[in-house]
This record gives sequence, structure tokens and C-alpha cells, in this order.
Amino acid sequence: MIPSMDQLKSLLAEVADLRHAGDLLEWDERVCMPDGGTAVHGEMLSTLRRIAHEKFTSKAVGDALASAQAAIADGDPQSADRRLVAVTARDYSKATNVPADYVAEHAEVVSAAQHAWAEARAESNFAKFEPHLEKVIELKRRYVTFFPSVDHPYDALLDDYEPGMKTADVQSVFAVLRPAQVELIRTLASAPPVNDAFLRVPYSEHEMSRFATDVITSFGFDWKRGRQDRSVHPFATSIGASDVRITTRWVEGQPLSLLFGAMHETGHALYEQGVSAAHHRTSLEGGVSLGVHESQSRLWENLVGRSLAFWRHFYPALQSRFPAQLGAVSLDEFYKGINKVQPSLIRVEADEATYNLHVMLRVELEIGLIEGTISVRDLPELWNARMQEYLGLTPPDFARGVLQDIHWSAGLFGYFATYTLGNLIAVQLWERFASIRPSRDEDIERGDFAPLLQWLRTALHQHGRAYEPQELIEQVCGSRLDPAPYLRYLQQKYGTMYEKN
Amino acid sequence: MIPSMDQLKSLLAEVADLRHAGDLLEWDERVCMPDGGTAVHGEMLSTLRRIAHEKFTSKAVGDALASAQAAIADGDPQSADRRLVAVTARDYSKATNVPADYVAEHAEVVSAAQHAWAEARAESNFAKFEPHLEKVIELKRRYVTFFPSVDHPYDALLDDYEPGMKTADVQSVFAVLRPAQVELIRTLASAPPVNDAFLRVPYSEHEMSRFATDVITSFGFDWKRGRQDRSVHPFATSIGASDVRITTRWVEGQPLSLLFGAMHETGHALYEQGVSAAHHRTSLEGGVSLGVHESQSRLWENLVGRSLAFWRHFYPALQSRFPAQLGAVSLDEFYKGINKVQPSLIRVEADEATYNLHVMLRVELEIGLIEGTISVRDLPELWNARMQEYLGLTPPDFARGVLQDIHWSAGLFGYFATYTLGNLIAVQLWERFASIRPSRDEDIERGDFAPLLQWLRTALHQHGRAYEPQELIEQVCGSRLDPAPYLRYLQQKYGTMYEKN
Repeated sequence: MIPSMDQLKSLLAEVADLRHAGDLLEWDERVCMPDGGTAVHGEMLSTLRRIAHEKFTSKAVGDALASAQAAIADGDPQSADRRLVAVTARDYSKATNVPADYVAEHAEVVSAAQHAWAEARAESNFAKFEPHLEKVIELKRRYVTFFPSVDHPYDALLDDYEPGMKTADVQSVFAVLRPAQVELIRTLASAPPVNDAFLRVPYSEHEMSRFATDVITSFGFDWKRGRQDRSVHPFATSIGASDVRITTRWVEGQPLSLLFGAMHETGHALYEQGVSAAHHRTSLEGGVSLGVHESQSRLWENLVGRSLAFWRHFYPALQSRFPAQLGAVSLDEFYKGINKVQPSLIRVEADEATYNLHVMLRVELEIGLIEGTISVRDLPELWNARMQEYLGLTPPDFARGVLQDIHWSAGLFGYFATYTLGNLIAVQLWERFASIRPSRDEDIERGDFAPLLQWLRTALHQHGRAYEPQELIEQVCGSRLDPAPYLRYLQQKYGTMYEKN
Repeated sequence: MIPSMDQLKSLLAEVADLRHAGDLLEWDERVCMPDGGTAVHGEMLSTLRRIAHEKFTSKAVGDALASAQAAIADGDPQSADRRLVAVTARDYSKATNVPADYVAEHAEVVSAAQHAWAEARAESNFAKFEPHLEKVIELKRRYVTFFPSVDHPYDALLDDYEPGMKTADVQSVFAVLRPAQVELIRTLASAPPVNDAFLRVPYSEHEMSRFATDVITSFGFDWKRGRQDRSVHPFATSIGASDVRITTRWVEGQPLSLLFGAMHETGHALYEQGVSAAHHRTSLEGGVSLGVHESQSRLWENLVGRSLAFWRHFYPALQSRFPAQLGAVSLDEFYKGINKVQPSLIRVEADEATYNLHVMLRVELEIGLIEGTISVRDLPELWNARMQEYLGLTPPDFARGVLQDIHWSAGLFGYFATYTLGNLIAVQLWERFASIRPSRDEDIERGDFAPLLQWLRTALHQHGRAYEPQELIEQVCGSRLDPAPYLRYLQQKYGTMYEKN
């Protein structure tokens, strides 16, 4: 129809193929690759990523984009072609703003920094990591200069993971969330202790695995367009919507970690499987942002999977798989046990009431580092002071404090915030869905997840990257990012739980 | 050292990365991919193959090759750089001789021909396949015209799978082999029947699989640089020497098919794992030809795996895994049972005494089709007449006759011969190894395969594609392709077996 659009789509399809192949290689590396394959996999991946980048940032794409923009300038701004061109133009501008030698230097610095971080964490020795982190931050500050029009330097970093999100928005949301969450966990600290001793006995990995597979099948995971494997760290990856793969892991002593991990990754997978086939091989395929992606994983893991309605349906099946461990544990005890609030040092082990505080602490420090108001040298002390302030705990060493996450060593600044954005968006969607589907909880009690998935598919998943995240949330929920629903949810959930205690 | 060599190697490394990635994608398609992934995998693979071809046939490679040739023209002709340049020049010339529109037309024609063949075979209806085969042969005859300097038109096709091999060489070898093998199976037909009833009872797939894994581990399969999976058709693939993957399958009613298949694929894998790391990411990596590759799979499957020495060591272990099936079967009975000679209609089920006759029949017909001395229309009749002449059998339908193999529909002309070349080369190597390692059979009786593998590595594997196949065989065995050792082997093996009966 419009030759320049066809030309653009054909160039984008080639780039998409290369990216898909790279994603599949990364999946293979983490799931299948024999140890000896490390070097050859590194070579393949770096060549594919480089060629994909060269092709996407080529003059050919720039020219096709300009012609397409001109050709459709008078059309409907909401047409599929207009959306595609707008998102491609944004991606193209970002990708071409960053010089190739910067990308190469970044890759080298973070490679060394990750090695140093792993050693530093093992020895709980911050000084070993400090000079590397200095370099990473210097690079990040240089990155910001490639985007001179941002309101705040941190905006340029945030935008890579959450397009259109501003530092000021995040800060104003956090300003509401932080005191309320600190207050909530202080209140809960005085509640009577929750008994979760039933989680400290041996469980069969095989049985748990089969149960988890039943659960994610009932959620709607499409096995014809996906698979499930084991890996050291659980993850989800997508080779287009028709091949979406998740992994789980078994952690000795944490019997439900496999189950909640499977639900979490299935949340990501359902999103990817739900993207419209019309977006396949274009700039619009895949999830729109890390925050919205995390909203899907958190929705299925927490709002569904840690709900009383869910366990009303599934607890008998779990009990019958584990009669020795759970036969004498009532549904109410089980529900409270898996929702126990316990401030802890480690982010990845945090519960729903404390998780955001771990994230806010990191984001605040990141913003300070990028602004230059915080120095790397002061980081450990600031970390510990804030842990005490938010969670009432002081890490006994740096390994369980400032050195616990890989993100900074990998150059992932602007990433942490998306975990909390995901939590908030999940509950915004959850409330919205209840308003149009009053039987939401009864559906779940019957083990019927089809209405929920159908709504998410229609309202959210199918659009892929066609709208900016905030625009999309506003379309679906009637308001942009908002901390109030999450706070209501926490109050309601924990208020009820501890009342009944 | 030599800038033009470095430039050439860097361009070849990029092409190798793309090919490795393509090979891994194909492995994934056959082992991991969910059904829904067919389309996206096809897109990725075709893009990777196209870019690899574009990059390899680019002017940049042509220029670097010419500069490198000039720069090293006065050096040692056996130097690594000279070998690399020579092999790259051969590959480059072949790849650039074939026009891109021919490649595209070929891909289309064989895609349609394969569908037609599958239907035709299912209905045993040759007429349905006939027009497609006509087109394929027309294309093959056109292909030959891109190589005007060949002695015989079929040389151009053979050379793609067995570089440097001539139709005349194959024909003169077959002229010796054919009558001798026909004669041998006539003689064996009058021998008393062999009892292999113990293979017609149920076996446990799991136990057989564990036994096969023990066997290939003892052969020397390096699990740090490889893995094993299940697939519909067994195969071996290599993502460079440090990541070599094999697959096996369980066929109900053929309990040893998994075991011999695993040995066969391990033969291919040991070759790939043995290629020198110095050849990695160059034109010299991987096996030198299909024939030499098949010599390795046949050596481990037949010369080792179907030998009495091998089973003297392994039979007690197999018996202890299958006491009900094999407890009362003596080693001698077992050995004869697994080496039973039985002319049959289907190539892939043929034994060591009859296999080459299936191959020779096909190669003779192929040569006639390419020369134009045989027409497609006459093929079914010629096939049946020759089956009667060579094996004393007439197929009851085309599905078990001329339509049984996928090769012709896929455009693989010149390929079949390499199965027989592999058989012959395997025994040439086997005799040669005995002459320098007189304890060859005693090693095997002790389950010690290290001397054999070590010799194959040093003599053959490490060189990758550095020498032409015939050159390499002559270096190692002291003579070029020779049917005499294979005939001696058959006479000796079956003479002894049937004498003792």
C-alpha cells in the first residue's frame, strides 16, 4: 500500500530476526549450553547483537523512517502505521544518539565491574568494588549528556526501562509510598507472631514441580507456544509471541519458591504470548516496559497466587500432594504463613509489605549518585543508615548490604524503580478489573482465570509497545501511576490477616 | 603479523558466528522448539543464512582473500595460513559462482518438492512426485553449468559433499564393490538362519538409554563440550568444537536402535570435538567432508560397536540391565543376532553387508539422471529391476521403493555416495590403526578406547578442513579411497560368523 512503510517493515523484520536469534542464544546459554560453550556463545551473541545494532542504526532505516513519516503524516494518529513509525523513531533516535565507542567502552567497564563485584561481594569488601563503581557512574553521567533535553539527568536512564517516565513522577510517588509503608511494617511488628514452621520441613521437588505446572496451566500458559525448563536463576524470555519460554528453580529449604517463581515467570510469559501477531517482527512486539512487565508477573504471583481466593481453590490439591507436611495445617494457617511480613536484609527475599522499601532505598541512592549529591565512598554508610530508617535493620556486612545486587556493576541504573512501578501498576489493574468484573474473586475461587486473562489480553497485552506505558495505564485504569491502590491493598490484606489472628 | 590475513580471519570469524548461530537454531528447532515456533524459527534461520551468505560472498572477503593470497604466496605451502587461504578460496569461488536468483529458485522448488514427495510417499504414488523431480533435476543440471571445468557433470554435485572427489573415482570403486557384495550376500543366503528372537521382546527405554550413555562416555564423548537429547530423527550438530550436541531416539520394537544410533552420532561428535581450536571461527573448522564424517560414525557404530571384542567387554553389563531378555542368550548368539544379514527394501534399516548396495543403486541412477541417459519417468522401473539384481527383492510399492528417501526432493544430489565412501574409509582407517596398534582388539576387549580416539584425533580430527579428503586419507592410510579393505572386512567378519554356526 505505502511503499516506504513496506520498506521500513522489511528492514525492521530483519532486525527483529537477529534480535530473536540473540534472545534464543541467551536462553540456550542459561538452559542448555555445556560449560565448554561459554566462549563460542559469547562470540555468536556479540556478533548478532552488533549486526542487529548496525542494521537498526543504518542510514537505510533512517531514510525509510523519514519517507514513511512523510507518507503517513496526514493519516489517523492512532493508526497502526503511525504508532509503528512513532515508536521506531523514538528507538532510532535513542540508538543513534549513543556513539559506538561509548557502547564498546561501556561493555568493557561493566564486564570488569561485574567480576570485581562478584569478588567484592564474596569477601564483603566494598573497597574492591568502589573504583569500578566510580567508573560505571562516570559512564552513566556521560550517557546522560547524549540526551540534553531531559528535565533531570536521571530521566535519561529511567527512560531506557520505562519510556516516558520522569524522575519527578517517581519521586512524588515514592514520597507518598515510603512513609506509609514504613508505618505499616511498624504496626505489623507488634502483631502476634505468624507460624510458618510447616515451610521448614522437607518437600518433594518433583511433586511441587507438578503442582506448579498444574497451576500455570490453569492460568492459561500456552504450551503450544512455550516451554518450561530449569535454570540457576528463574527467567522468562520470548522469541516472539509464539515461542515464550520460562524457567524455574528448586531452592532447598524454600519449598514454595519454585511455585511462586513459576507464577511470576508465567505472568511475564502470558504478557508476551498475548501480544498481537500484527506486531510480530516490528518495533511494537514485546512488552512495553519493565514496569508494566513486572506488573504482570506480580499480579499473577502476588495478587492471584498469594490470595485467599486462590488457595481456597488450590489448597486441597496441594495438601493431597503433601499430606505429611500440610495435612494438619489449616487453610487459614497456610495463608498467613505464606504471607508473613518480616523485614529482612535481602531484596529478593522480601515480602509484599517490605519489598518497595528495598527498591526506594536503591533508587534514592542512584538519583544522588547521578546528580552528584552522593559520592560512591559514602554509599555503604548511607545504605546502612537508610536500612535502619526504613526497615529497622542494619546489615552485619556489605555482602548483605550495599553489595547484594548485581545491577550497578552491570551498568543497570534506572532499572530498580521498575520493580516498584510493577507492584503499583499491578494493583491499579487489579482494582480496575474488580470494578468491571465484580465476581473477580469468585472466579479465582473456582480456579477460573479465563476472565482475568481475557481482560488483560484485550486491555493490555495485545498492544505490545504501541503506546507509552503511562498512556496505556491511563487508558486501562483511568489514571496514571498512582500509589493509592497499592497502599489500600496492603492495608486491606494485612489489616484483615492480623485482625483475624 | 600479516595484516591482510588478520583482516580475512576477522571477516571469516563473523561469518562463522552467524553459521554457528544458525546451526544452534536448527538444533533448537528439532529438540526444544514448541510447535507454535515454526514460523518464527523459519524467519530467524532464513535471515541468518542469508546474511552469512551475503557476508561470505561480499567484495570485502574477495579483496581480503586476494591480498592475503598475494602476501603469503612465497611462504610454506603447508603453513596454516596457506591452507586457510586455499580452502577459503575454494569455498569463495563455489559460493560466488552460483547466482543468488538460482539459490532462491532452488529453495522454492525443493520446498514444494518435499511437500509433494511426502504426499506421494504416503500414497505410494510416483506420478505425484514426478513433475517435481523433473524440476529438481533440471535445476541440478543448471547448477552443473556454473562449474564448466568439471570432467563429468556429476562431479560438480559430488564435490559439494566430498571436495575433490570425481565421478570416475566413485564409479571405479563401485565396479569392484558391487559384484563382490552381491556375491557375498548370495553366499550368506544359503547359511543357516540366525536367531534374533531376543530382540523381539520388550525392553526398557530408560535402561537402554543409561547403557548407551555409559558406552558413549567410555568412547570419550566430552560432556563438558557437548550434550545429548531426544529428537524424532537422531543427528549430531556442532556449534564449534566446544559445543557438540547429539540426539537419540527410541523406536518401539527395535531396542538396539537407540544404542547403535547413539554410537553413530557419537562418532560424528568425537570428530567435531577433536578439531583443533586453532581452526575455530575459520574456514577450516568442522569435518572435511560427509564421507570422512560418515567414516567416523560408522567406525564407532559398526567396527567398534558391532564387534565381538566390544561385546566381550560390554555384554555382561547389558545382560545385567536386561536379565529377563538376555540372561539366557549367550555372547555368541547375541553377537550373531545383532549382525544378522538380511537383504531388505529400506536403506536405513540395512546391515553392513547390504547397505552399500542400496547406496550404489541410487548413485548409479543419479548419475544417469544428471547425464540425461535416464529419464525420471523410467525411474521406478529401473529402481525395481536393480533391487532385484542386487538384493533379490522387488518392492511391493513405490513407498518402499523409489519414494523411500527424502534426499532427491530436497535437492541433495551427490550426497548418497558419501554413505558408502564413509563405510570404505572407516575400514581403511581401521586396518591402518591395527597395523600401528596391534593390540587394537585387546584394548577394546578391556573397554579402553583411549588409544583409538587418541590416534583418530592426531591423524584425522585435529586437521578439520585443512586438507582435501582424499589427500587426508592418503596421508593417514597410505592410499586413497580403496574398496579392498572393506571387502576383506566383510569376508572376514561374515566368514567367521557363519563358519562357527
